[in-house]
Amino acid sequence: MKIAVDAMGGDFAPQEIVAGAVQAARKNLADIVLVGDEAKITDCLAKEKDWQTLSITIVHAGEVIGMDEHPAEAIRQKKDASVVVATKLVKDGKCDAVLSAGSTGAAVTAAQLILKRIKGVSRPAIATPMPTPEGVTLLLDSGANVDSKPEHLRESAIMGSIYAKAVLGKENPRVGLLNIGEEETKGNEQAKETYALLKDESAINFVGNAEGRDIPKGNFDVVVCDGFVGNVVLKFAEGLATTFMELIKEAVMDGGVSAKAGAFLLKPTLKKLGVRLDVDEYGGAPLLGVNGCTIISHGSSNAKSIENAIKAAGNYVHNNVLDAIAGHLTKEKSQEISASV
Amino acid sequence: MKIAVDAMGGDFAPQEIVAGAVQAARKNLADIVLVGDEAKITDCLAKEKDWQTLSITIVHAGEVIGMDEHPAEAIRQKKDASVVVATKLVKDGKCDAVLSAGSTGAAVTAAQLILKRIKGVSRPAIATPMPTPEGVTLLLDSGANVDSKPEHLRESAIMGSIYAKAVLGKENPRVGLLNIGEEETKGNEQAKETYALLKDESAINFVGNAEGRDIPKGNFDVVVCDGFVGNVVLKFAEGLATTFMELIKEAVMDGGVSAKAGAFLLKPTLKKLGVRLDVDEYGGAPLLGVNGCTIISHGSSNAKSIENAIKAAGNYVHNNVLDAIAGHLTKEKSQEISASV
Repeated sequence: MKIAVDAMGGDFAPQEIVAGAVQAARKNLADIVLVGDEAKITDCLAKEKDWQTLSITIVHAGEVIGMDEHPAEAIRQKKDASVVVATKLVKDGKCDAVLSAGSTGAAVTAAQLILKRIKGVSRPAIATPMPTPEGVTLLLDSGANVDSKPEHLRESAIMGSIYAKAVLGKENPRVGLLNIGEEETKGNEQAKETYALLKDESAINFVGNAEGRDIPKGNFDVVVCDGFVGNVVLKFAEGLATTFMELIKEAVMDGGVSAKAGAFLLKPTLKKLGVRLDVDEYGGAPLLGVNGCTIISHGSSNAKSIENAIKAAGNYVHNNVLDAIAGHLTKEKSQEISASV
Repeated sequence: MKIAVDAMGGDFAPQEIVAGAVQAARKNLADIVLVGDEAKITDCLAKEKDWQTLSITIVHAGEVIGMDEHPAEAIRQKKDASVVVATKLVKDGKCDAVLSAGSTGAAVTAAQLILKRIKGVSRPAIATPMPTPEGVTLLLDSGANVDSKPEHLRESAIMGSIYAKAVLGKENPRVGLLNIGEEETKGNEQAKETYALLKDESAINFVGNAEGRDIPKGNFDVVVCDGFVGNVVLKFAEGLATTFMELIKEAVMDGGVSAKAGAFLLKPTLKKLGVRLDVDEYGGAPLLGVNGCTIISHGSSNAKSIENAIKAAGNYVHNNVLDAIAGHLTKEKSQEISASV
């Protein structure tokens, strides 16, 4: 198992990315290929005394795609960008997976242009694991596409289901369609048409409509939606969590001695709870539907989340998610074509 | 100021609704007309010893619209439903505002059918105040409409701006368009076309695109979106907040003596913080764009949120939100018509 890590992508790159990769290598989660500015990567590695005893190599890439660049243009112009070089390593069979915490748009576009879509998949989807009390709910698409057609959402439901089963260990994943009410007749045109498709889809365990509140409660294993809605929800969750933690800290600081003592006594309990709800625990979101494993990590990824994303990449590859998706959607496509001939 | 309160709507109706109305009457926030099953309302009032000294009257309504009923059908069939009777009191000029914590769909439909739209408004919108560290962000539409056209969102931006200024005391409300990126070119077709409209709209202070995280952070005063997205976000926020509180309680219970002591010491601090973030503090969401004040309260409203919703209704009426909206959008419409003649 060899994983190409975009060392230059992310708010805390390259230091935290390299540190996470080293941690993963120490645990033998995978062989690591760090892709990016060789001098900078070497500097970061110098802080990790044992790195030369680990399975870590460097592939130099002289350019970086910034968060504010237009993804498609940047990918075309910067042939030597770290995310491009890393994705090509997968295309060329030199690595099994690519991981980036840089611009999501750039990682998605690189995957679409270089790895290409799996035959039978109209649109790849980002599947983000959202923490719940009992584990995670997979939310897809969380930002690869907007203005999706019902057929795209049906494919997402199948891909999400396959991933939840293969990687998240859900036996018969409960699939929900994100909507504004439980009833079949609720929602916008997209949701109503998608409901009809999912209801008749034998490849998934479609339970019905999921409302916003069902995501954090964990009432479904897979929640399918348009990438516009998924992306808004994902960023809203991040914003709410950070705002809430800041307010609690502020309140404790302003709360006098007893509040500070209380916070001190509660700390271990909240820490344990934090681990359960920590997005870093789940590391990365796979881009499902492209010909190769691309894992997208949060921009604010620290070493721990990179380590966990590497673990996720390993699980994706080990459990043959790619073959399972192709086995279903490519086969379906071929049958359609032969039926129409 | 006379406010018709749907006593039968809400998870804790009629008891909590009546209790909230009584609290509001005690504070002279408004004269209250409780609408619903007279016997049940009288029973609830019997628990409030001073109620006969307060300005509270009862208007009997023999039917109730359930949460699972189809709004338009139910409104047509149940002429004597509490929300219908209460809305008619506004239509007939007997009350200044109507308030319901029952089915949102029913309250919206009743308002649309009975009060009708303000001339120049294509689609009314629910404007929900979302708590932020510094106050609230008004999110609209949060569920009255789906598949909105850019023009509908432009009207929402104007109405939300007027409400934020008149009722929430924001001098020059910062208006944002909910989107998946900051750049003008980001988003789905609806968002891109709406951006162009809002950019050129001199009646509002359009700041640009808002991302999901900007809502809880309070980076905008008014955030405009399609009702599908707004409703998903609203319910997601509710689900996340309740799940988080349940998990904290559970963690404290499992955390032994020190966790319990810590929680005890922290309680006053968290309580103060809770007040800042409590949706009940903001009581209700106005349905903007209909000819009369309709305030929609959360289904799980308790007495406190009903009292605050009555306060919100009073502010709406007192600050002439209706005239301000008509003054802008009806006037705009007439100018368009006269220009085209």
